[in-house]
Amino acid sequence: MRQSSYFAPTLKENPAEAQVVSHRLMLRAGMIRQVTSGIYNYLPLGLKVLKKVENIIREEMNAAGAQEILMPMVQPLELWKETGRDAKYGTELLRIKDRHDRDFCLGPTHEEVITDLVRNNVQSYKQLPIMLYQIQTKFRDEVRPRFGLMRGREFLMKDCYSFDVSIDNAKKSYELMQKSYHRIFNRLGLDWRMVYADTGDIGGDYSHEFHVLAETGEDTLIFDTDGDYAVNVEKHDADTCAIPSERLKEAKGIEVGHIFLLEGTYSAPMNANVLGDDGKEATIQMGCYGIGVSRIVAAAIEQNYDEKGIIWPEQLAPFNIHIINLRAKDDDCNNACEKLYSQFKEQNYDVLYDDRDIGAGQKFSDADLIGCPWQCTIGPRGLKDSIAEWKNRRTGETTNLPLGEIPQALVGKAA
Amino acid sequence: MRQSSYFAPTLKENPAEAQVVSHRLMLRAGMIRQVTSGIYNYLPLGLKVLKKVENIIREEMNAAGAQEILMPMVQPLELWKETGRDAKYGTELLRIKDRHDRDFCLGPTHEEVITDLVRNNVQSYKQLPIMLYQIQTKFRDEVRPRFGLMRGREFLMKDCYSFDVSIDNAKKSYELMQKSYHRIFNRLGLDWRMVYADTGDIGGDYSHEFHVLAETGEDTLIFDTDGDYAVNVEKHDADTCAIPSERLKEAKGIEVGHIFLLEGTYSAPMNANVLGDDGKEATIQMGCYGIGVSRIVAAAIEQNYDEKGIIWPEQLAPFNIHIINLRAKDDDCNNACEKLYSQFKEQNYDVLYDDRDIGAGQKFSDADLIGCPWQCTIGPRGLKDSIAEWKNRRTGETTNLPLGEIPQALVGKAA
Repeated sequence: MRQSSYFAPTLKENPAEAQVVSHRLMLRAGMIRQVTSGIYNYLPLGLKVLKKVENIIREEMNAAGAQEILMPMVQPLELWKETGRDAKYGTELLRIKDRHDRDFCLGPTHEEVITDLVRNNVQSYKQLPIMLYQIQTKFRDEVRPRFGLMRGREFLMKDCYSFDVSIDNAKKSYELMQKSYHRIFNRLGLDWRMVYADTGDIGGDYSHEFHVLAETGEDTLIFDTDGDYAVNVEKHDADTCAIPSERLKEAKGIEVGHIFLLEGTYSAPMNANVLGDDGKEATIQMGCYGIGVSRIVAAAIEQNYDEKGIIWPEQLAPFNIHIINLRAKDDDCNNACEKLYSQFKEQNYDVLYDDRDIGAGQKFSDADLIGCPWQCTIGPRGLKDSIAEWKNRRTGETTNLPLGEIPQALVGKAA
Repeated sequence: MRQSSYFAPTLKENPAEAQVVSHRLMLRAGMIRQVTSGIYNYLPLGLKVLKKVENIIREEMNAAGAQEILMPMVQPLELWKETGRDAKYGTELLRIKDRHDRDFCLGPTHEEVITDLVRNNVQSYKQLPIMLYQIQTKFRDEVRPRFGLMRGREFLMKDCYSFDVSIDNAKKSYELMQKSYHRIFNRLGLDWRMVYADTGDIGGDYSHEFHVLAETGEDTLIFDTDGDYAVNVEKHDADTCAIPSERLKEAKGIEVGHIFLLEGTYSAPMNANVLGDDGKEATIQMGCYGIGVSRIVAAAIEQNYDEKGIIWPEQLAPFNIHIINLRAKDDDCNNACEKLYSQFKEQNYDVLYDDRDIGAGQKFSDADLIGCPWQCTIGPRGLKDSIAEWKNRRTGETTNLPLGEIPQALVGKAA
């Protein structure tokens, strides 16, 4: 992508409204723009990262045997009445009336819709297990939206639901999903932790949260430095915990995933039953599995930045390589850059090419702000010796390499 | 994908509520399920086709230099007040109030949001032209939703917007998009026609519609069989038309795309200006370019079906090959099918494998209903001679081929 025509308007100053670093840097790098409180436009750079997160999640969901579907954002409120959640959910559920004065809501989650779908289309235990997921825009009418994508009103979620004939089988689906989440968060390249958690609004029997560790996290996690114990502080009872206190450590986390064993919480009141192999009707046993897709983008930044800007993990970087042309008025520089730009793209690298006719200082500061893992700088001086300067954004290390060569650490990392 | 675990519940009977063939067949093939009037769940099969349409559109938009963004579904009504459309749009615009009693709407289109984005981030003619697009869920509160995905309330659109410094340049963007639309509809493999059209609710100077030809189309198109003249009947004036009437032909069309030269319709009232190269402020000149992504799926069916079911064009088919195992209880059949299933997938074909333990009759009727272009049937009789029977779903022709061979017409057509 040529930066001269790329819609990524960078800002030099910190926007006053942005209190946390991810919000600040996403605005400054031209990834997002606010439409109104808690509601954002994703510009090309922001959407590109969002899609990288989406793709990793989608691949792992498919690998786990979950099937992708798409449910509507606008949901009939009558389904929520069947489970009693219309009353319980409170004012975060945005209720609307259509032109015929019928009641709807904007879906913050889809347990009712999917339970309705499954009860109408699954009759026999032979059709189970099923795991269905979607990656979809959700709405939650937060009383005080803040921190950019961290606590927005309209956001992107992956929500998956499992359906089994028995609680034992439902637990197997839960464990399968848990393993899938381990793979997803490892692949995202983030420092994360799984903890026991409260089941909150969703209900059900037991659940785990997945947190990206970051000082700005709103949750406190407590874990045993010498064992498996790891909980959200809400779940920690210091009086009954048998682990010596010196072994317990605290960390701040940003919740980016949450899995629940629901059992019959939704299927029982909604009469979602199947005929079992014993010929008897049985309540379908469910699990639900969420990941905050847009929140992961913000959380990744909270964990990966410095005073100059974002430092993308390779897996989430919008571009692998940022070519910086130091002299856009110079034919030799332009020719060399164009050649590299084509070559790297042919090798399947995602390349941003700064071909703008502006000063070198602004190019360097924009490149550090946007935070692609590798910067490849071409200037008249290096060109004399057919050399490009490569900078590793994370370590700051620079190396001179013959034109067209790629740092060893980048080889094989094409998108 | 193994059909035994695939969530594609087929129906033998025609659902009473479905009046048009695409609605009927999408329900029967297990592609969609209604949640409530005009609002649908896309099951895996339906979503797969939707994604194929999406990908063709995305590739061509990117090739035309348009950049993908994502705008919110929930829009502040105050932006619509700036253009006066909050009053003009009527009851199809679903208005909502958030918990703080602020006015919003569910976006049926995004001219206001994107004009706001561009006016806040583009100051100079040097930043133009820009073309931005999104593929996104929209909502239009139809008074009488009908015909399944053809006239739903929640639907998937591609909307693209161009921004130029002058009307002449805006016309160039318009022409570029028009060419891109030609490529898109050709690649979709549909019989389509472009016609001059009314500008309707969107406004602006001139516009073209893109129609998929089908007897069930709600629009009437009139075109010169011996020239370029082609219009929506709304635009046709028999009294002034100079073309001999015997040369004019009528056809029914389903509108799947619409492009508009907006000029200053939105940018002028919203004060979206840039500094021109003459140092003077100029109104940004816009165009907008829509494609009904979910409607294309329905329109493709209206044009491609028979009494047995859907006949997918290769480009939109959810799967290239449908393997039908005639004897799921027979080890030889299973082994042969498993081997073919792996082999075709390795060759990058999208394969649906009917491994269900049910009668051959239901397998054949489901395969014809789902409509994959090629069926590869394996049974004990053919296996004796190491032969598979291939059926072309469109022509009905069958051929026997040695196991593992692929019909010549399918070679090189992998997904």
